[in-house]
Amino acid sequence: MSSLPYSSSPTKGIGSTIKSSLIEPDGGSLVDLVVPENKRASKISEAELMPKVKLTKIDLEWVHVISEGWARPLKEFMREDEYLLSLHFNCLRMKDGSLVNMSLPIVLAIDDETKEKIEGLSDVALLGPNEALVGILRSIEIYKHHKEERIARTWGTTAPGLPYVEEVITSAGNWLIGGDLEVLQPVKYNDGLDRYRLSPQQLRKEFDHRQADAVSAFQLWNPVHNGHALLMNDTRRRLLEMGYKNPILLLHPLRGFTKADDVPLDVRMEQHSKVLEDGVLDPETTIVAIFPSPMHYAGPTDVQWHAKARINAGANFYIVGRDPADHGKKVLSMAPGLEKLNILPFRVAAYDTVERRMAFFDPSRAKDFSSSLEPRCRLTLEMARILPMVSCVLEDGKSWSSTIRFCKLRRLMKSRQCCLLR
Amino acid sequence: MSSLPYSSSPTKGIGSTIKSSLIEPDGGSLVDLVVPENKRASKISEAELMPKVKLTKIDLEWVHVISEGWARPLKEFMREDEYLLSLHFNCLRMKDGSLVNMSLPIVLAIDDETKEKIEGLSDVALLGPNEALVGILRSIEIYKHHKEERIARTWGTTAPGLPYVEEVITSAGNWLIGGDLEVLQPVKYNDGLDRYRLSPQQLRKEFDHRQADAVSAFQLWNPVHNGHALLMNDTRRRLLEMGYKNPILLLHPLRGFTKADDVPLDVRMEQHSKVLEDGVLDPETTIVAIFPSPMHYAGPTDVQWHAKARINAGANFYIVGRDPADHGKKVLSMAPGLEKLNILPFRVAAYDTVERRMAFFDPSRAKDFSSSLEPRCRLTLEMARILPMVSCVLEDGKSWSSTIRFCKLRRLMKSRQCCLLR
Repeated sequence: MSSLPYSSSPTKGIGSTIKSSLIEPDGGSLVDLVVPENKRASKISEAELMPKVKLTKIDLEWVHVISEGWARPLKEFMREDEYLLSLHFNCLRMKDGSLVNMSLPIVLAIDDETKEKIEGLSDVALLGPNEALVGILRSIEIYKHHKEERIARTWGTTAPGLPYVEEVITSAGNWLIGGDLEVLQPVKYNDGLDRYRLSPQQLRKEFDHRQADAVSAFQLWNPVHNGHALLMNDTRRRLLEMGYKNPILLLHPLRGFTKADDVPLDVRMEQHSKVLEDGVLDPETTIVAIFPSPMHYAGPTDVQWHAKARINAGANFYIVGRDPADHGKKVLSMAPGLEKLNILPFRVAAYDTVERRMAFFDPSRAKDFSSSLEPRCRLTLEMARILPMVSCVLEDGKSWSSTIRFCKLRRLMKSRQCCLLR
Repeated sequence: MSSLPYSSSPTKGIGSTIKSSLIEPDGGSLVDLVVPENKRASKISEAELMPKVKLTKIDLEWVHVISEGWARPLKEFMREDEYLLSLHFNCLRMKDGSLVNMSLPIVLAIDDETKEKIEGLSDVALLGPNEALVGILRSIEIYKHHKEERIARTWGTTAPGLPYVEEVITSAGNWLIGGDLEVLQPVKYNDGLDRYRLSPQQLRKEFDHRQADAVSAFQLWNPVHNGHALLMNDTRRRLLEMGYKNPILLLHPLRGFTKADDVPLDVRMEQHSKVLEDGVLDPETTIVAIFPSPMHYAGPTDVQWHAKARINAGANFYIVGRDPADHGKKVLSMAPGLEKLNILPFRVAAYDTVERRMAFFDPSRAKDFSSSLEPRCRLTLEMARILPMVSCVLEDGKSWSSTIRFCKLRRLMKSRQCCLLR
């Protein structure tokens, strides 16, 4: 039988799976579940007469995700069949029998009272956390929310301390409601970052506009540091070597529910922009956008979702960074439904003390590399919170900007305490 | 996208998936991992020189299962890749990219001390619980036994009280060892029931010998009662109606680890034989054999394994009884890698108070059926323990035999207290 190791070659199934055109979305097409403007008034009138289901802030993020096609083939909150397929097999099955990846249940919970109110009905209206009408759920199906099973099969543990569980699931209702989604108007956050929230359709359009023949997506959590920059520039080099003429990089931080101690997104987005401005990454071949999904922090199960959603956004290469969790890379390389995506593994970058720059680790002269410096590449929470803007400090002296000034100010530069000094 | 409801039609994908010949084993071929007799002596000499890994009674049951090909395409205790595929996707992937079902990790745990002893070696010998040489594991791989994750993803819960967890996993070592299996001689139990332990190869041979053109497997837990008999005879009728000329029934109780309060197998096997003797089931078209797997009691995850193993044994129809767990039937009908198996759902049988016999429930005259009698069809533990032989009491008066005599003796017949009286 097949052994499926995490390949040491840079791409999975090169030759057989690399597409010369952009990758097909799961289910064959995207969706835009926002009702056309000329029908909005009548849909709103219709929704106003329906019984209402109240959404939390995070439910609304999922409405956003589904409505733009990130979760294709889904165009619904999962009914029980999809829920069970996702939970047991991390997959959905298409009509032709083929499997697409779907590692997380994308579900809407309701409480007993709401269930009683809507039971037996076909359609319900969705209300946002601010009581505004958000959308309609059609042909609903209500089924039991087996929370413990959902948690155990999604996270592989039921231990306390899982951020999504504590924030979302513990307090959620005992029932799940599936149904086809219609959204009354595009979901906006008015936080100054909506311009970064490009839908899969918009991203694909932009890739076409730039005449991309390969798109590599990279989801990162922190301000770009030198290891990232090296990685991303090296990815470009590798894609060019493979014969692609115009590879585009999608720099794609997740925004949606994250635990409180992640670096604030506005700080990160400003830093990403600065990295482009300073030419550390080429603005001609790099797109910075926001992935609107909530974060499950569910290790290998989450990683699959992150990769799958980028297929729908048009990326045919997915850059996997530091192993995001036990077995994350390995599971990703094996996952049913992700065969068409080329996984580009992170190559370990470390500080080369001889060349005095960040470089990919060379095991033949291991002693020249200082991996102990690596943790310092992470922006500390305190710094991220108080910095008006951070930037990336590179070995070639570019991009000193405010971070260094900040570091100097704080006297953090001594003994390499500044996280961005590499 | 596809909705995949649990079909109300008797077969899944009839026409497209029903095979006129017996079903192909997963991986395309069976295996017999017992070394040929002419090589036994040299293999034993070789094994005697290897470091030893001690097996528990249940490990030995898995050796039995793997060695006969029930778990094909496995011919090994899982290495980490197979383990992760099984745990996350309930599947294994073949070299051609196709998926076969494998819902349970089939793994061998070792403790820290054993790991230290064998680390870096290629091959180890396996010792049975009685210290006898059992086999060899080749090209071993040792990896971490993440018990909590294994439990959470297999059972969908980590709550105490899971029989397999408490018996097998809790006390198991912190490492798993994968490797290709060679068995020095066939696993035997010498409990008087070995003659019922037909391997997949033996079963297939028997089906060929009887010129079966369809084989339906039924795993049952209890002595055959009238509901079962009705079901199985009705299955035959349906298969004949579908055009099969010679459908064979494989009556296939599981034997391997079971929790203490299940009805003892020797009692059940005797009852099954009696049912054939009495002609309740036709001995010409029925084979009674034992499935040697341990039982996980893991609901829908276990059910997939039970179905998958019967594919390897040559069954192309699988009869699913009373929903063995929440969603068991539904998950089974959706499971990747089980598409080629035709699932025959249990039709609810109840006592028809008008016709005065067991019959399939007819919702149009629901009031005529007494489902409250159903629980009495289960042999109580106490009875099973003390009965020298039990039999099935049918509405036509056949098979009175010792059960009834026992019931009379115990004055259990009054007010229908005897479980087998329907």
